[in-house]
This record gives sequence, structure tokens and C-alpha cells, in this order.
Amino acid sequence: MAQAPLTAPDAGVREVTRAIKNGALGVQINTNVAGMPLDHPAFEPFFAAMNKLNKPIWLHPARAGNFPDYLSEKKSKYEIWWTLGWSYETTAAMARLVFSGMLDKYPKLKIITHHSGGIAPMLEGRIGPGWDQIGARTSDEDLSMVLKSLKKRPLDYFKHDFYADTAVFGGVPATHAGLAFYDLDKIVFASDCPFDPERGTMYTRETLRILEGIDLPKADKEKIWHGNLEAITGVKFPS
Amino acid sequence: MAQAPLTAPDAGVREVTRAIKNGALGVQINTNVAGMPLDHPAFEPFFAAMNKLNKPIWLHPARAGNFPDYLSEKKSKYEIWWTLGWSYETTAAMARLVFSGMLDKYPKLKIITHHSGGIAPMLEGRIGPGWDQIGARTSDEDLSMVLKSLKKRPLDYFKHDFYADTAVFGGVPATHAGLAFYDLDKIVFASDCPFDPERGTMYTRETLRILEGIDLPKADKEKIWHGNLEAITGVKFPS
Repeated sequence: MAQAPLTAPDAGVREVTRAIKNGALGVQINTNVAGMPLDHPAFEPFFAAMNKLNKPIWLHPARAGNFPDYLSEKKSKYEIWWTLGWSYETTAAMARLVFSGMLDKYPKLKIITHHSGGIAPMLEGRIGPGWDQIGARTSDEDLSMVLKSLKKRPLDYFKHDFYADTAVFGGVPATHAGLAFYDLDKIVFASDCPFDPERGTMYTRETLRILEGIDLPKADKEKIWHGNLEAITGVKFPS
Repeated sequence: MAQAPLTAPDAGVREVTRAIKNGALGVQINTNVAGMPLDHPAFEPFFAAMNKLNKPIWLHPARAGNFPDYLSEKKSKYEIWWTLGWSYETTAAMARLVFSGMLDKYPKLKIITHHSGGIAPMLEGRIGPGWDQIGARTSDEDLSMVLKSLKKRPLDYFKHDFYADTAVFGGVPATHAGLAFYDLDKIVFASDCPFDPERGTMYTRETLRILEGIDLPKADKEKIWHGNLEAITGVKFPS
């Protein structure tokens, strides 16, 4: 895949177009661009181009220690920015694409969220009946038009319009939660190799072991291993 | 339960002592105190007192729209601060109590985290092997002593030293993830009634329905319904 240089949005569109013409399976972006959210108008040409190119976008978390966890502090402590923050920001980026209407406007976008979409599966109840009540908790701004502006219920975008990979560092509850939350056609294998404590293949081994142990038809597992990614990229991988 | 007024830490200790002497089952605190984390030295007398009083602390999320999700912004949009932020901050507060050594110093603390401890169950792989590598991602600060300062592996505190309630707004993946993550003796029933779209009993009904449908021995379910809370509070509830 190519890295889309969104800090220079116009050059970014040219670069991803060039890369995909030259064989890239898709492009990677981060969950923020120099601190800005993905629904900032500067990045709309990129999403419009990807909608037309019909190739996937890999969405990778990006937050550093300079993003504090408390209003009284200037930085995040104990690497909370990584452990919890990356997964938070992944789901926040999904939310911004949903509520800004980008997914309605560009329905062919294929966004592969890293780490099972962060915390979305765990928060199905909050994203579902919780966000169905958007506006009820806010008094300084009228959010009553947000739901009306969308084509469907917020939860439905999270569950059915995003792809999610299986790289959850050997987390068993997360693996099951991801399989329960997303459509099977939207789940793609990934492991985050080699960022495990061995700096080797531990996450690949563990992710394979957990998935192999789950009672799913062989055809469904084949989709997760390679079929779904082949369908998104339009490329048949050698077996 | 009583609300512990931690914004006035000394008065807070007196008030919770008074309330518990007068029959309160425990006290509630929030995941931040006027923007400050719970491991701020100002709040240590409270945790020391609760450790001595041997009654539970209910930990409730607290974050508002003035906590932005992106460095380029001044406030959170679309109520992301509630839907995702409350759960993020719950787990961040747990992390601060773990890494600051508060749980080692006050081992009798009984902290009941709301909403199944936020995002902890989903992030078992990040909290586990991910946080086992704390320091590897940080170059401007030496975090090598953090792990050495703790009595056990970070993940073990999250899994075995916190209590978690079942109030996940009818989220099926979250319910299963919570049951897989926490010790059964640490799970207590809660529903978040009446904050559902009906402003009534929907979350109670749904939470009961999901838990009833899970294949668990009757004795284990009795612990979740009331047994575990009776054990923590030392009070037998009328049946």
C-alpha cells in the first residue's frame, strides 16, 4: 500500500492516484493529520478521489504523548496515549466520518480500521441506543439535525460500512467482540507483527491460534484469511 | 451510596467517614476531579480512608464537551466525549491508579468501575503484552522503572483488582467481553436505568435478557445479581 501524504492534500490526491495506477493495493492514512480530524474540508478531495479509485484505505491510529488524558495535564502519562488512546482515536475518526456525512456522500469508500475498529465493538450499546439520543446531553449547541442529516442509524454505519482487521494483540474478548460486531465480509486478517514482546511472530501465532479455535465454517475463515481482502482490492493472492 | 466531594479533599474524607458511619454502603467518585487525575497527591487521604473503611468506591465517568478529541480543536464534536470519552476515561483512571502504585499501597480498595470498566476488556491485548513493553515507545522520559515499581504485571491489576458492573446499554459483545475479562466474583449487576431511549426500563430489561441467556451456573448468576455486592458491602439485601 502507499502512504497518502494528507498534510499536503492536493499533492496527496496526485500521489495516491499515481501509486494505485502503479500497482498499490490501496493507501494508508492516519486517524489525525497533524492534529486535525479527517472530516476537515481540506481532506475531502482525498476521500472523493478514493471513492472514485475504488481501492481500500487502511486507517492507522496516530496519537502521541502530547495528547493529555486530563484537562489539568499537558501530556499523557504511562503511555496511556498508546494503549488506550490509539483505540479511542480510531473509533473517534470513524465517528467523525459518520456524523460529517462523508460515508453518505462517498458510499464506495472502503475503510479498513486497524485493531478491530478500536473500541467500537465494546461500545455497541453506547454507539447504538446511546448515540440514538444525540443532542440530549448537549445544551450549548443544537445537535437535533445531526440524526436527520444521516441516511441511517449511527450504529449501522459502524457495524456495516467499515472494514476491521483482527490485530488485537492476542486479546480473546476483543476477537470475539469484533466477530460479533462487524459483518463477516468486512473482517480481514492482520496481526501487528513484529510489535510483540518477542519482536517476532508472537502476535501472528496468537491471532491465528485464537481464530482457528473459533467455531466458524471453513469458508468464512477463508474470507478472513484472504478472501475479503481479495474482494476489496480486486487482486487474487497466490496461495 | 454517598457522593465523595473530592474537590475539597479534607472535607471529603470527613464526609465519607460520616456517611458510612450513618449507613452508606459506599461512596461514589468521578474519573476526574475538576480535570485532575485520581492519583493526584491531594486525593491520597481519601483512598487511604476508604482502604481503612473497607467499603466500595463506585467510579463514575465524568468528562464534558470541553475535552477535545483532536489537538486542533477546542471541544469534542457529536458527543464523542460521552459515547467514547466516558469509557476511555474510566479505563484511563484505572490505569492511573495502577501505575501510580495506589492499588499496591492500598490493597483493600474495592473500586466498582461503571460500564464494565470502559474499554479495558476490549483492549486486553494492548493492556497485556502491549503495556508489558511500557517505555519502548517513549524517548523523552525514562519509564523503565514503572514496571519494576509494581508488584505484578499491569494486566493482572485490571483483570483481578477492579470490580466491574454490567451496565453496557444492551451491548452483547461488551457483556461477553466483560464476563471473559473480569473475575466472576468482581462482576455486579447494573443497568444505567433510566437513561435509555424510552427513559424507562429498557436497559434493565435488555441487560437482564442478555445475562439470562448466557450459559452460566445459577450460583454464578446469583453472585452477579446480588451476591458479589453483598460480599463487598457486608450487607445482606432482602430477597
